[in-house]
Amino acid sequence: MLVLGIDPGTAICGYGLVEMQGNHLRAIDYGAVLTSPKSKPEERLLKIYNEIDALILKYKPDVMGVEQLFFNRNVTTAIPVGQARGVVLLTAAKHEIELVERTPLQVKQAVVGYGRATKDQVIFMVQKLLNLPKAPHPDDVADALAVAICTTHCMNSIVWRNKL
Amino acid sequence: MLVLGIDPGTAICGYGLVEMQGNHLRAIDYGAVLTSPKSKPEERLLKIYNEIDALILKYKPDVMGVEQLFFNRNVTTAIPVGQARGVVLLTAAKHEIELVERTPLQVKQAVVGYGRATKDQVIFMVQKLLNLPKAPHPDDVADALAVAICTTHCMNSIVWRNKL
Repeated sequence: MLVLGIDPGTAICGYGLVEMQGNHLRAIDYGAVLTSPKSKPEERLLKIYNEIDALILKYKPDVMGVEQLFFNRNVTTAIPVGQARGVVLLTAAKHEIELVERTPLQVKQAVVGYGRATKDQVIFMVQKLLNLPKAPHPDDVADALAVAICTTHCMNSIVWRNKL
Repeated sequence: MLVLGIDPGTAICGYGLVEMQGNHLRAIDYGAVLTSPKSKPEERLLKIYNEIDALILKYKPDVMGVEQLFFNRNVTTAIPVGQARGVVLLTAAKHEIELVERTPLQVKQAVVGYGRATKDQVIFMVQKLLNLPKAPHPDDVADALAVAICTTHCMNSIVWRNKL
């Protein structure tokens, strides 16, 4: 099973493709779509859409995992992040890929085993679990890989439940 | 000049096509994309994307007008509204249509002449300015037409400035 994890953002949209074979996790590809603040908002969204679309066409993931967002404080960024997120969800719907939404708490619990883990702990564990040569950078890439790992766990538990 | 005004939302996405010929405004088409709360978020976004895309292909507008959003209070809806807005901006970028963003204040000033006008005043003036047989319904349609009217004014002033 191949999972595409995404950490949506207008400036940096992290992505990570993680494959689960038996109990073995493997990172297939990971990186970030970067857009320039000099570009118009709609052009930045089009770049994100096109690059995620191209990733889906190339790797044909079975599932997409995206973090559920909650904004209690930083309201000013909620609209741009929502816009990037909308474009990402659209690619899933267009290709009829199952979408799994996980809370940041669930992602941290799946990767670190502790819902209030720090960013550094998440990065450390992502590198260990996927046996990466170095820590994924920027944070958005680590977050996307973490969501992908969490999503594989979630999908596994669904498969198991269906077998019972 | 043909302007497509949009009032983005996940449940109701209002649209209004307004043509400006000389100093005469005319509503070419208006309505709303409705999506079911029973559908998945990504399916709702795909429906919005497909229907706005179809409108653009049918009418080939020169400009798209969308309200700028500010969330001071209702933060919980910022993400879904942002998602719908992202998908709408994407259609503009895909078709290389010029995008004009106006604040709610600018829209009300353009249509009613008063930045703190009520919803009913906006609906009343939209009906008068476009000579519609009845008040546009729901509010989202009136808002989309109001944005379209405001955008025609904005584009006119750009044309005038370029002539000076």
